[in-house]
Amino acid sequence: MKTLNVDLADRSYPIYIGSKLLEKPQLITNHVLGNSAVIVSNSTVAPLYIEYVQSALNAKNIRFDEVILPDGEEYKTLQTVVTIIDTLLSKKHDRKTTIIALGGGVVGDIAGFAASIYQRGVNFIQIPTTLLSQVDSSVGGKTGVNHSLGKNMIGAFYQPQCVIADTDTLKTLDSRQLSAGLAEVIKYGFIHDANFFSWLEKNIELLMAKDPATLVHSILVSCQVKADIVAIDEKESGLRAILNFGHTFGHAIEASMGYGNWLHGEAVAAGMIMAIDLSQREGWVNNLVRQRAEALFKKCSLPVLPPAEMTIEKYMNAMSIDKKVIDGSIKLILLKTLGKAVITEDFSADNLNQTLTTM
Amino acid sequence: MKTLNVDLADRSYPIYIGSKLLEKPQLITNHVLGNSAVIVSNSTVAPLYIEYVQSALNAKNIRFDEVILPDGEEYKTLQTVVTIIDTLLSKKHDRKTTIIALGGGVVGDIAGFAASIYQRGVNFIQIPTTLLSQVDSSVGGKTGVNHSLGKNMIGAFYQPQCVIADTDTLKTLDSRQLSAGLAEVIKYGFIHDANFFSWLEKNIELLMAKDPATLVHSILVSCQVKADIVAIDEKESGLRAILNFGHTFGHAIEASMGYGNWLHGEAVAAGMIMAIDLSQREGWVNNLVRQRAEALFKKCSLPVLPPAEMTIEKYMNAMSIDKKVIDGSIKLILLKTLGKAVITEDFSADNLNQTLTTM
Repeated sequence: MKTLNVDLADRSYPIYIGSKLLEKPQLITNHVLGNSAVIVSNSTVAPLYIEYVQSALNAKNIRFDEVILPDGEEYKTLQTVVTIIDTLLSKKHDRKTTIIALGGGVVGDIAGFAASIYQRGVNFIQIPTTLLSQVDSSVGGKTGVNHSLGKNMIGAFYQPQCVIADTDTLKTLDSRQLSAGLAEVIKYGFIHDANFFSWLEKNIELLMAKDPATLVHSILVSCQVKADIVAIDEKESGLRAILNFGHTFGHAIEASMGYGNWLHGEAVAAGMIMAIDLSQREGWVNNLVRQRAEALFKKCSLPVLPPAEMTIEKYMNAMSIDKKVIDGSIKLILLKTLGKAVITEDFSADNLNQTLTTM
Repeated sequence: MKTLNVDLADRSYPIYIGSKLLEKPQLITNHVLGNSAVIVSNSTVAPLYIEYVQSALNAKNIRFDEVILPDGEEYKTLQTVVTIIDTLLSKKHDRKTTIIALGGGVVGDIAGFAASIYQRGVNFIQIPTTLLSQVDSSVGGKTGVNHSLGKNMIGAFYQPQCVIADTDTLKTLDSRQLSAGLAEVIKYGFIHDANFFSWLEKNIELLMAKDPATLVHSILVSCQVKADIVAIDEKESGLRAILNFGHTFGHAIEASMGYGNWLHGEAVAAGMIMAIDLSQREGWVNNLVRQRAEALFKKCSLPVLPPAEMTIEKYMNAMSIDKKVIDGSIKLILLKTLGKAVITEDFSADNLNQTLTTM
């Protein structure tokens, strides 16, 4: 087992990464501070793994309730959060209760947000069961839900007590979800670590085959990059925004196509190629970077183009209410070179227009 | 004008206290960080004071929208927060917008919570227009809304950019609301400052007559006591709970009587007498304290008894889901002496039973 510490003063917490972690009940119970808990999971994940959490809690006589959500991004709404809070109140959970999120990013985002607002904040444990959530959404404290007018528009920065990333849970992950997670893994190479990008090019077949040791390494490096960035800029006043590489275009694709039709990682993959396209037009990266990116994505069965339905009007409409739009001027995350992303508004509107119309 | 600083590291902020503060537009605009704002007020306060805020924003060309809520605690719900968020999104306010709460505690709690969860947190200015909100709810960062199963069960700790307490806004406050505010002012004497309690006994008629200088002093001392306590224990892990003196019983009264029928300050006044009654039964305070408390409350037209409808069953039912119930054992805020409150579970169940049945 590898342990990584996210360094945030009194909100610091460990990330445990390895196989068979769900078989170590103390990883969970050491972080349950009171004597009650609520497990939040979904109808896909709960039948596979909830018994591990149940038996860990039972072994320590921790009273618990369960909220099993339907599976899907379309349930990432304030109404679902209300469902969790109704359970917390009707089952008389107090301020010392612990909410345990067992599932992918949607479950973690919803449960974490519920934890942040229930009685102004209760303890929270993340057990991410998808690659995407293990390398991205479970780390860094972003929680929240969607609004019909925008993704993640309602939420909070709220850190968990710990993150338990058991790579064995990826055995049941379907290949489309695995690929979507790899999009975020590859993102860390693009924005911060060219050597890691090269390592991914060499090891992509092993990752696609879910080789345990290769998965652990890729998750560890991904979480380390994210944790380092979050430690510097927890609330995204600056640097942290580079984690959104590919996401402004990606969010526009997700929103326009209807949440859930394109997976987040798929939309972000297409969005990263679009960001590289614009970076190329600005003369910052060369065609070799583009080719390497597209080749790697193709090996992961990730898209290298946005859906044909996307018009420039759809992009502009979606992007004008994107969270990264500050004071009406659009800032984008672009690549200065492979391994170095920047937050910039220093690109020509004409080039952006070209990227949006030709891709 | 007096300025008090709430010392919370990177979340520190000033409280401005004095008369004619709404006529100083820069107090508002200096704390609007972007170029857009949303004023949240209610149908009672907006006609009286919103034009001051409007003209301050117009003078600096700050684009703004308004959300005018119906007046009343019954609208302090998640649904009202959704209404504000719908406006923020449909009017395309970005992460740099500022939410300005103009009104009493209900408006401040709702608007502050909306600010805390909109795009994971936007800037927020408090302009409290009731005595209660000037001395209590606008200071310390507690925001939130009620749930049908409990008061303030959904919320966040979220600090404003500044608090602007203009005592001239109290001229339009009706006497029942003024008295309800005085209950919280008197609370600071009970829990922390016996000299302030004596000062209140001497000056209560001037306060009831809204004498400006006397009001400013009472607000300043109240905010100072609260700011000192909050600086030590922002998230209420310990000491801060003494600010809830009278509130466990008070919340039970409010909830059982239906929110809005007993004003918060009225319920807390009765709750404080109940807490004193229990403190007396424990032998900590003598009958003179009880007599002084009751005499002062009577001069403010505040209740010294809970409503006759309150049964022990109603108290126990309401208190079992009170936020201050930890691990199933009831902690209460009681007086060790006039000027010193403690958080304790060291009282006899029999004495509590006596207090609940005989009052």
